[in-house]
Amino acid sequence: MPIKVYFAAGAERWPAYREPLRAALSELGIAADLSDSAPDPAAVDYIVYAPGGPVTDFSPYTGCKAVLSLWAGVERIVSNPTLTQPLTRMVDQGLTEGMVEYVTGHVLRHHLGIDAHIHGQDGIWRQASLLPPLARERPVAMLGLGALGQACAAALAALNFPVLGWSRSPKSIPGIDCHSGDTGLAYVLSRAEIAVLLLPLTADTRDLMTAGRLALMPEGAAIINPGRGPLIDDAALLAALDAGQIGHATLDVFREEPLPPGHPFWAHPKITVTPHIAAETRPTTAARVVAENIRRGEAGEPLLHRVDRSLGY
Amino acid sequence: MPIKVYFAAGAERWPAYREPLRAALSELGIAADLSDSAPDPAAVDYIVYAPGGPVTDFSPYTGCKAVLSLWAGVERIVSNPTLTQPLTRMVDQGLTEGMVEYVTGHVLRHHLGIDAHIHGQDGIWRQASLLPPLARERPVAMLGLGALGQACAAALAALNFPVLGWSRSPKSIPGIDCHSGDTGLAYVLSRAEIAVLLLPLTADTRDLMTAGRLALMPEGAAIINPGRGPLIDDAALLAALDAGQIGHATLDVFREEPLPPGHPFWAHPKITVTPHIAAETRPTTAARVVAENIRRGEAGEPLLHRVDRSLGY
Ligand SMILES: NC(=O)c1ccc[n+]([C@@H]2O[C@H](COP(=O)([O-])OP(=O)(O)OC[C@H]3O[C@@H](n4cnc5c(N)ncnc54)[C@H](OP(=O)(O)O)[C@@H]3O)[C@@H](O)[C@H]2O)c1
Ligand SMILES: NC(=O)c1ccc[n+]([C@@H]2O[C@H](COP(=O)([O-])OP(=O)(O)OC[C@H]3O[C@@H](n4cnc5c(N)ncnc54)[C@H](OP(=O)(O)O)[C@@H]3O)[C@@H](O)[C@H]2O)c1
Repeated sequence: MPIKVYFAAGAERWPAYREPLRAALSELGIAADLSDSAPDPAAVDYIVYAPGGPVTDFSPYTGCKAVLSLWAGVERIVSNPTLTQPLTRMVDQGLTEGMVEYVTGHVLRHHLGIDAHIHGQDGIWRQASLLPPLARERPVAMLGLGALGQACAAALAALNFPVLGWSRSPKSIPGIDCHSGDTGLAYVLSRAEIAVLLLPLTADTRDLMTAGRLALMPEGAAIINPGRGPLIDDAALLAALDAGQIGHATLDVFREEPLPPGHPFWAHPKITVTPHIAAETRPTTAARVVAENIRRGEAGEPLLHRVDRSLGY
Repeated sequence: MPIKVYFAAGAERWPAYREPLRAALSELGIAADLSDSAPDPAAVDYIVYAPGGPVTDFSPYTGCKAVLSLWAGVERIVSNPTLTQPLTRMVDQGLTEGMVEYVTGHVLRHHLGIDAHIHGQDGIWRQASLLPPLARERPVAMLGLGALGQACAAALAALNFPVLGWSRSPKSIPGIDCHSGDTGLAYVLSRAEIAVLLLPLTADTRDLMTAGRLALMPEGAAIINPGRGPLIDDAALLAALDAGQIGHATLDVFREEPLPPGHPFWAHPKITVTPHIAAETRPTTAARVVAENIRRGEAGEPLLHRVDRSLGY
């Protein structure tokens, strides 16, 4: 009997994923019945999931051995009370590369003061005031040292930025000054001229960046948030920007997405909104991760990137 | 008798260089009489040089064993007919790091389409149209594979950009697709979506980027020029931008500097002017290079970074 794989990650993604998934499954010798519909929920062996897809109630999928998320962030499914099946998140080479490029690009943009050049095409040759320090003189904080945070930290360290890292569990990573806990966060923030947020959204990380924590940073520091919108207290951020405590914020994620046209972030001169494009799962590479987890599930091996429901990520 | 070192690199640089030079010379055990004036030119052993400094006629410096440029580009001194002394250019760790940061930052800026975000803070959530490809799908040309070009090429290759390199003499550099000669240039330009110019200005490189060469690039390609202004035919560039053949140019160097306020580059929507700030020689590290060359000169050893006057760089 072929394994029944239900693609419940949105009709708009199905055309891009169908062939890569078929190919990845057959490469691993898995005979699968892959479809974007499941008239008989009880017959489904694996669900490929993304938020906004057709499944919100997982209880009818009584035979389902795992729910495989195409997204790295799982905050919209992890607390679903109907979900009793094992849940995996996405760690994808294409996603990681995209995030490294976004983070490196925006850190360098802030470091080099590129906006001042873009806005300053007025015929005035401001040589002295626009020469930045070297990267080795510009400490960067990486909040979150998971799949994405570690890759970004390594890319920034390779460009000579001193990188201060922060994670839940204590870590030791060559070339990164790693910290954890509340004291660790205060240490990291008080030294970093640019902070990058690559944390998952959980009960513990929600509203992490309060007015008090923003005030710890050196005056004029920049924030880059490609993690999740609710990591930051929006009102505190706006106040810190208006006071000059924070110099600029580049935000890719928001409490409400799409960010409503009238939201104050859009028009704020010290905020750059990017429309949740920091990194996207790429069908070809992601399909291989999904297929490998199906192989593991069938072989009774531990799944890759399993979500710990008690931690929320 | 102490060695007479004449700092002829501009009064504005003297305060920043005096102590680093003294320290670097004494570290090498060189007893030097370091000064920013030389009442007796014939007594001068070494000249520390930068364009715009007090020396334009080198003939009175009859005992001078070498002219040591603080600048990497020597086009303003190399053809000076009064210069008969050996000439060295600057290769400085601080200069190289600054250039790598500028080039990587602006390549990523073009790659990620950051300008579209900065200019597009209008409340419209343009998710689909603004997702860039991965760096591995974006070939970059590095014209010039010297001290700076090679360092920039390596940084871009580390970010997965496929890098095509071009230099006068054929080269083989791991991870870089190296070419030389006219055919090589056509090959490199026809494949690169972003071209970085890190060539010295010589008789051979002047006006290198003609209308014909700009036309070889894929439509909408970007040009980044931190090399020298006259590498590009300005009129051809403006025409290629207006025709859409070139999508954007970020220029740090110009035929006339400061770029005059009325110059068409300033107001052009597809040109970003930066005021020759891509990279600056840093006094502490550069002083060590100068001191080492004085040590070599005194010991009769070959000078570092000697300029080949027949080649012009
Ligand atoms: N904008 C986009 O396009 C986009 C794309 C993909 C992902 N994302 C976001 O990026 C996030 C990170 O992705 P990832 O793959 O790197 O996740 P991950 O591998 O699960 O890593 C999460 C990191 O955050 C740390 N962390 C979690 N809770 C914490 C807490 N309470 N205090 C301190 N540190 C904590 C973890 O610490 P430990 O190491 O100790 O576990 C880990 O280092 C995702 O959750 C998602 O929200 C955004
Ligand atoms: N904007 C700024 O702030 C700034 C700062 C520093 C330097 N610069 C500019 O950057 C330039 C490069 O510096 P660098 O230290 O890397 O110089 P370099 O070490 O002398 O390297 C020059 C490179 O250009 C190549 N080249 C020279 N003539 C050529 C020709 N006719 N055809 C093809 N390739 C040719 C050389 O080829 P070979 O390898 O075969 O010799 C070499 O690879 C400087 O000359 C200066 O103009 C600008």
